Amino acid sequence: MKKIVVVGEILVEIMADSEGQGFREPIALTGPFPSGAPAIFADQAARLGQPCAIVSAVGNDDFGRVNIDRLERDGVDVSAIRIDQDRPTGSAFVRYRSDGSRDFVFNIRHSACGYLEMTDSTQRVLETADHFHVMGSSLSSPEFIALNVETAEAVKGRGGTVSFDPNLRKEILDTPGMRKAMVRILQLTDLFLPSDEELTLLTEASDHGAAIQELFGLGIKAIVHKNGVKGAHYYDAAQSLFRPAFVVEEVDPTGAGDCFGATFTSLWLRGTNIEEALELAVAAGAKAVTKRGPMEGAFDLQTLQAFKLEQREAP
Amino acid sequence: MKKIVVVGEILVEIMADSEGQGFREPIALTGPFPSGAPAIFADQAARLGQPCAIVSAVGNDDFGRVNIDRLERDGVDVSAIRIDQDRPTGSAFVRYRSDGSRDFVFNIRHSACGYLEMTDSTQRVLETADHFHVMGSSLSSPEFIALNVETAEAVKGRGGTVSFDPNLRKEILDTPGMRKAMVRILQLTDLFLPSDEELTLLTEASDHGAAIQELFGLGIKAIVHKNGVKGAHYYDAAQSLFRPAFVVEEVDPTGAGDCFGATFTSLWLRGTNIEEALELAVAAGAKAVTKRGPMEGAFDLQTLQAFKLEQREAP
Repeated sequence: MKKIVVVGEILVEIMADSEGQGFREPIALTGPFPSGAPAIFADQAARLGQPCAIVSAVGNDDFGRVNIDRLERDGVDVSAIRIDQDRPTGSAFVRYRSDGSRDFVFNIRHSACGYLEMTDSTQRVLETADHFHVMGSSLSSPEFIALNVETAEAVKGRGGTVSFDPNLRKEILDTPGMRKAMVRILQLTDLFLPSDEELTLLTEASDHGAAIQELFGLGIKAIVHKNGVKGAHYYDAAQSLFRPAFVVEEVDPTGAGDCFGATFTSLWLRGTNIEEALELAVAAGAKAVTKRGPMEGAFDLQTLQAFKLEQREAP
Repeated sequence: MKKIVVVGEILVEIMADSEGQGFREPIALTGPFPSGAPAIFADQAARLGQPCAIVSAVGNDDFGRVNIDRLERDGVDVSAIRIDQDRPTGSAFVRYRSDGSRDFVFNIRHSACGYLEMTDSTQRVLETADHFHVMGSSLSSPEFIALNVETAEAVKGRGGTVSFDPNLRKEILDTPGMRKAMVRILQLTDLFLPSDEELTLLTEASDHGAAIQELFGLGIKAIVHKNGVKGAHYYDAAQSLFRPAFVVEEVDPTGAGDCFGATFTSLWLRGTNIEEALELAVAAGAKAVTKRGPMEGAFDLQTLQAFKLEQREAP
C-alpha cells in the first residue's frame, strides 16, 4: 500500500448551535471538534486503511490532544505532529447563516500549525511518502509553500505521485506569490481535485472543456471535479465519467470535500477501477455531511460500500 | 474625577456549560464573553462613572468587536485599543471542575494583546493617566513589564497614584525577571490589592502582620486584602477595617476580584470614606459572582448601593 503524506493545519472547530450572523454576543456553541482540511483528509485516508501521515504542529493543550488522539485512533501516523510548547493549537469558530454561508473567527497563522520547524521526525515522514497530497488552504506562508513545492518535487523525483486540492479561500489566492505557487504545484500534479469554480480558477481558459485540456497540457493525468450535490465528474486522457450525488440529509457540509478527496485518492492509488473509486468518493462526501463536526463524518471502506449499495438499491 | 489607566489583556472567554475535566471531546459551551482581568477592571470602574482607559489590542474579528462594543457602551475610553490586522483577539476556554478549580485553554501570548505597539493614541492615553492600575496577569513579557514600570514611574512623577493587583498565576511568577518586576511595582504602589495568599507572596515576612508592616515600609499607603467569601481587610498606617462578604448564590466567580478592585480603587480616588468604599467593593465582588461571564457582573454605583442596603437590612 502506498503511503500518503500531507502537510498542513490541524485545528479545533467550535461550532455555533444556532444559525445567524457572527460571534458578537454569547451564544450556545459546541466543541472542540478535531479539524483542519489536511487533517480530515489524512483521517479519512487512514480510515480506509491507507498508510497516511500528516506534518503539522499543535499546542501543548487539550485542543492538540483531542486532535492527536483522534488521528492516532484512526490510524494516522502522528510522528510528524510537533507539540509546540509556546503556541496554542489553531482554532476556527464557525457559524452558519441561514443562506448556508459561514462566518468564521480564525486563529491559524499565529497558532502552532502556522509555524514550520523541520525535525528529524518530519524529515523521516517526508522521505517515506509514496504520494504527496497538497491542500491549497495549507499554502499559508512562504515557508509552507516552499516545503510543499520541494516535497512534491522530491516525491515525483523518486517516482511517486502528487494530488492537489486547491481548497481555496479567496483571501489566500491574493497573498503574494500564491498564484505562482499554485501553478507550480499544478505542474507537479498527477491527480487534481478542484471543487466547483476552482476548476477554472488557475487556468487561462474559462470554459470547462478547454480548462481540462489546458490542465492535461501541464502534465496532470486525472481530474476529479467535485460539485457537491450536483455530483462529480472524472476526466483523463481516455475517458470521462459522471456520478450524481447521493441524496442525504445535510447536517454539516464542512469536511465533505476532504473526505471525498481522500477516498478517491486512496482508491486511485490502489488501482481500484475509476467508476468504483468515483462512486465511493461520492459516498464518502455524502456520509460526511450527515455528521456534525468536520472530521466526524469520516468512515471506513465497509461502511461506504454498504451505504453505496443501500443507496443504489433504494427505490 | 481622576482618570484611571490600565495596560493589559483583552480576551474573549468561552465557558463550558458542564463541570468536568478539560476539553478533550466536543461539549456544550457558551461564548464569546468579553473578558481579560484589566478589561473587567476598566469596565467596572467606568460603570461607576470613573474616567478610565485601557491600553491593549484586539484582532480584526468579532471577538475584538464584542469587547470594544461592551467597553465603549459602558464608558471606557477605547481610543488606545489597537486593532491588529494580523493577529486574532485573545481567548480563554474555561471549564470548572466539581471542586471549584478550573481547566483552561489559553490563546493570549501570541494573540493581538500579547504584542505591544506604541501608537500616538496609546501615548496620549498614558499621558492623561491620573492613576495607573497594574494588573499582575498583564506583566506577560519584558516589553509589558517595562511599559508598566515606566508608566507607573511617570504617573508617580507627576503626582499621580498607582494601584497594584498581583493577580498571579503561579507560572507567571516563575518567568525570568518577573519577581524583580513585581517588587519594583510594589515600590511604586500606593494602593495594594492582593487576594488570599498573594498578601505574603512578595514579602520576606510570611506572617500577615509583619508582611503588612514590610509593605508599608516600601511606601505603600493602603492595603486591601481580598479574601472572597471570607470578607476583606483594609489596612493603612492609621487604621484597619474588616468587612464580611455578602451571602449570594455563586454562579461564576471569574472577575469578582477585578470588580472588587475597580470599585475600591475608584471610590478611594474620589475620597469616599474607607468604610463605605470597602463595603461597596465587597458588594461589587458579591454581585459579580451572581452572573455568568467574567464581565457580566459589573454594575453601576446605584445598583451596588441598593444591594448593600438590601443585604444589611436582611434578617
